[in-house]
Formats: sequence, C-alpha cells, structure tokens
Amino acid sequence: MVSTPSISNLPATIAWENDGLSILDQTRLPHETVVEKLTTAEEVWRAIHELRVRGAPAIGVAAAYGLCVAMRASLHLPIAEFRAQLAKQAAYLDSARPTAVNLSWSLRRMLQAAQASPASETASLLRVLIDEAVAIHDEDRALCKGIGEHGLPLITEGCGVLTHCNAGALATTGLGTATAPIYMAHAAGTKFRVYADETRPLLQGARLTAYELQQAGVDVTLITDSMAASLMARGLVDVVIVGTDRVAANGDFANKIGTLALAIVSRHFDIPFYVACPSSTLDLHTATGDAIVIEQRRDDEVTHLYGQRIAPANMKVSNPAFDVTPHELVTGFITERGIVKAPFARNLATLFAMEGDAA
Amino acid sequence: MVSTPSISNLPATIAWENDGLSILDQTRLPHETVVEKLTTAEEVWRAIHELRVRGAPAIGVAAAYGLCVAMRASLHLPIAEFRAQLAKQAAYLDSARPTAVNLSWSLRRMLQAAQASPASETASLLRVLIDEAVAIHDEDRALCKGIGEHGLPLITEGCGVLTHCNAGALATTGLGTATAPIYMAHAAGTKFRVYADETRPLLQGARLTAYELQQAGVDVTLITDSMAASLMARGLVDVVIVGTDRVAANGDFANKIGTLALAIVSRHFDIPFYVACPSSTLDLHTATGDAIVIEQRRDDEVTHLYGQRIAPANMKVSNPAFDVTPHELVTGFITERGIVKAPFARNLATLFAMEGDAA
Repeated sequence: MVSTPSISNLPATIAWENDGLSILDQTRLPHETVVEKLTTAEEVWRAIHELRVRGAPAIGVAAAYGLCVAMRASLHLPIAEFRAQLAKQAAYLDSARPTAVNLSWSLRRMLQAAQASPASETASLLRVLIDEAVAIHDEDRALCKGIGEHGLPLITEGCGVLTHCNAGALATTGLGTATAPIYMAHAAGTKFRVYADETRPLLQGARLTAYELQQAGVDVTLITDSMAASLMARGLVDVVIVGTDRVAANGDFANKIGTLALAIVSRHFDIPFYVACPSSTLDLHTATGDAIVIEQRRDDEVTHLYGQRIAPANMKVSNPAFDVTPHELVTGFITERGIVKAPFARNLATLFAMEGDAA
Repeated sequence: MVSTPSISNLPATIAWENDGLSILDQTRLPHETVVEKLTTAEEVWRAIHELRVRGAPAIGVAAAYGLCVAMRASLHLPIAEFRAQLAKQAAYLDSARPTAVNLSWSLRRMLQAAQASPASETASLLRVLIDEAVAIHDEDRALCKGIGEHGLPLITEGCGVLTHCNAGALATTGLGTATAPIYMAHAAGTKFRVYADETRPLLQGARLTAYELQQAGVDVTLITDSMAASLMARGLVDVVIVGTDRVAANGDFANKIGTLALAIVSRHFDIPFYVACPSSTLDLHTATGDAIVIEQRRDDEVTHLYGQRIAPANMKVSNPAFDVTPHELVTGFITERGIVKAPFARNLATLFAMEGDAA
C-alpha cells in the first residue's frame, strides 16, 4: 500500500473546507498563484466558463461542489421548491461549458443522489448533496492514486521521464494522470529528471506541467516540442508518459497535438512509450482511432501569444488540437487497475468491458 | 535553362543601387517591412550586429558592400593611406559578429581583390572593391538558383511540401536554399501547398519563411512544429525540404533544432526527406555528425517571447540550437551541382572533394 503524497507548495486545484469552495485560478498560472473563493452559482459558472478551473476531472468536481454552493441560497425554501431550484441550478451550471463531458456527468450524478434521498428538510438534502460531491472528489483522487501506484515501477533511480501537455495534478483534484507516477516516485525518494514539452500552441506544458512539477520540487526541465528527439538521441530519456483524451477499443488514442510525433520518435529510439489512462477515458464503443474526429481550433492560437501577433497578418493556419496515435506505437496503458499491454483490444476489454458497459 | 524568378512583393534582402546599400530590416518582420539605407561603416556594423541582416550568405554580401560604403569616406586620402584604412575598416566590420564564418570569408576576399589590384587612384581601387562585392553577390544568387533548378522536379502538381526554420530568400540574396525549388516551381505555374513549421524557440518559420512565401504568393500554411506528423498521417505532405548549417563527409548534417524529429517522422511515413545544401555548407573535413558540437543557447529564448514571460520563473531549460540528423534518414542533398543520393560519403566526395580541398 502506497500512501498518497501531497504536492507541497501547490495549492489544491479545488478545495472544500468548512463547506466553502475555492479554486486555484489556472488562467493566472504560472505568473500568479491566486486561490479564489466561489460563493455563488454565478461565480462557479464563470470560473468554469473562463477556464479558471480546467481539465475534465477537475471540472466535474468543481461543478458538484458548485451545485452545493448554489443551493445554500435556497435553504429557506419549502422542500418541493428547493428540489425544483436544484434542477434549475444544475442546468445553469451545465451550460458553463457545453462540450465538457465530466460536467454533465457530475451534475447528473448529483441530481440522482438527491432524487434517491427521502429527505424532507432542505438542510438534510443539502447534506446529501455535499456527501455526493465529496464522493465524486474522493473517487477522482483515488483514480489518480491508482494510476500512480501502477506507474511507479516505470520510474527508476537516475532515469529521465518525458511528458507532453498537462495531464497533471492541475487537470484533476489528485496527483494527475501522467504525473501521478512522477509524484509517487518523487515522494518515494527516487532521484530522476523530468522533461516537459512546452506544448504549442497553448503552452500547457510550460504554463502548467513545468509549474506544478517545479512547485512540488521535482527536477523538471522545460524544452520546446521540437527538442524531444535531440534529448533522446543523447540518451537522456528513458521513458515517455503522456495523458489521453480518448482511447479506442483497439488501443488507438487521441491526445494533445504533438503526441503522435513523440510516439514515432520514441519508437525510433526504442524508448518505452506509456499512456496514463483512467477508465473514464476509455471509450470501448469507439472501435479504432479512425472514428475519432479531430477538432480544428482557432487560427489565433497559433498566430498570437498573450495578445501579441507572432506571425504575418492574414496567415493561413492549420490548428488541429489533437492527433491520433496508433496502438502499435504504445508500450502500455497505465490504468487505475494495472498496466495494460498488447494485444490491447483483448486486454482492455478483459479489464474494463463489462463494468464499462454497465455504467 | 530555367530563368530566375523574382519574388514579387518581397523587397530584396540586400540591394546595391546607384552605389548605395540598403537592407530589409529582418528584426521588424513580419510586422513591418522596413528598408534601411546604410551610409556609414557604423550603420553597416550595427545592422549586422543587431541581426537586421541575418543568414550566413546574406551577411557575407552585406559586409562586402558595407566595406565599399565605408571606403567612400576615404576617397580624398592618398592611395597608401586609403589602403591602410581599408584594412582597418575590414577588421572593424569583421567584429560585428564574431562567429559568422561568411563575414570573415567575404571581407578577406575583398582585401585580396584590393591587394591584387595595381590601382594607384582611390576611385579606381574603390571600383575594384565594388566589382568584387557585386561578384560575391552574383555568386550567392547563382548558388541559390542552382539549388532551385536541381530541386525543381521534386515539387509536382498538387503536392504538399513541408519545410522547417528559414533557409529562405531572407537568409540569402537569392531564392534561398530550401525555398529555391519552391520559388522556381511557383514561377513555373505548378500548383502546390507549402507547410511552414513555426520553428520554436525563435520562430524563424512563422516570422520569416511564412512571411516571404506569403509575400511571393505561394500557398503557405503555418503550423506549430508538433503538427507535422499529424499532417503526414493525413497524407498532406509529399516531400520535406530543409536547409542545413553543416554537412559532414558521411552525410550526417546539423540544422535547426526539430529537424531530427522531422526526419524520423518522415521516414516513418515513407515521405522523401531532402536537404538543400550549397557546396559552401559541405564540410568534408568533418567525418561524421558526432564531431559537430551543438550550441546551447540562452534560457530566455524558451521562457520568454517578445519580452513576455511564458513559463514559470527560475525554470530549468534545455535549449540546443541545432540537432544532428544521421545520413540514413536523408533521401538526398540538393546541391547547386545536382542531387546527391546515398552512398553519401562516396558521392559527396566525388562531386565536391577536390575543389573543396583546393579552396
């Protein structure tokens, strides 16, 4: 049994203390570390909408607590009106980011908990909601911890670990996904180096991953995305661990743009390439990566940075947010139940299929 | 015989008209197109020192004309004093950028031309200097044109060409090296697409390559360095052409950081990978890429952009300016004498060895 290390110097992505909700404002990182208290439904909505809290798991937890915050203002109402107001506030919070799957999922789960409760007083129904939000929060942390435990043996004394984008603590309420083995190894006293790709265009690696690992005291070095191959050629990288946005049934997976190149280059240098994958990210209903649609994002993410233009005006741009890496390039998926190796279609189905279908 | 196309809408990197020198200020691109007249030795020195004119071939040409500009102020002197002043001014200009090989080479050649001249009047000796500068300029343009002619067949109707960094017209006084086949194919009416890697950290692809191709009317799309593999996976890239800073005798070559990853990814997708290589960049005295020392540059190139910090403070950074790509990943070198294919050691030596040694 490995205990969960705390990430020193890094405020919690989301905190619930004395029935009060606060978040770490991620739009101001790494320049300022600002913890913001959210005391109304409107404040929670704006924090999610404006990406001050981001990362699918973290958004789900923020919305659950946010619903509790919202309902405190209705404690004086008769119980029937309180329940009507609950549905309204959940719908309101759900509109903060239309495409965030975890947001809808978390709010639906909160409503189901309320419906299942026979509570006839608003205070006791609010307590049911708070308990459910705490459960959602606990489960997210447990999932990160499970990935950390199973990935821990991949990080050995003196090794170099490379990661891309931010599949870190800031995207969750726990140790992150790709970063969980890193934090566990650091807490265990292992000495190793991490290389963080800056991750153009939105620089999540430079702004978030480099920041959170630095705050935790991990030996982290920032590089541009184009430098990974050069480090590998010099023997500085022993293992690559990335996160994922969706894993198909055959093991093909989508992740932040640049992951595919990293997987190809890792294979060229015979460096193990792992994907941290909570079961919530596994999509067994998608057969292969070919079925994953790649979102094209706005041109100005490439042509501008912090409002400063860095390319010619009227420049034609391609800006796919993600790429799909074929399963042949994956060494293994680090899940909360263990590391899954090839053949992925069979082994992923064996470990997750039945419960995934029941959920 | 292919005629040299002009690059419409793009002012010349360096112009010599009516015995006056002007340069395109590259530090203000792509935001402003500013042509600056240089009328004193001090102005030429500063333009080179402050990278307003950059790219090894372009610096060589600027220095040659710059020496002519400098010597105009001494036309009234007796011929012996004029010659003494010439050596002084050449040494002064040579100090503008200590590591630029073409700068020293070009100024040495100018001094040799003066020494070989029996001219007894300052005006006629200045004419000798101007003629030599024009010859250096003409040779640079001819070299680009040769690469363009030999690379032209690689760019076919409807194809996609990907390039990295700026081995473009802006780095030379002609059609560039990697860009020369692109400009020739465009002038010949071939319809094709170019993808320009932005080339972090210094964004030469976004600021310079994307700019000069856009100005010339070439169909160019800007991408981040991490997107090349994604485009290749989607079948959008048919050929890659990059420049080089040094080619070893066995065909290993150094180029801007990110080139190695691009070569590996190109091989993965079976996409031809060419290196535009003027004979001046071939270093037959370096046996293999192992002997090429990689320059580590300042951290703030990665952590800052246009003076704006984009990473945490006190961040550890790795910033190799170049990487070395092994010859096994090269499809061919496009030189002014033709395309050189494997075995590179033998074929490069056959085409260039003897004259290279005599130079």
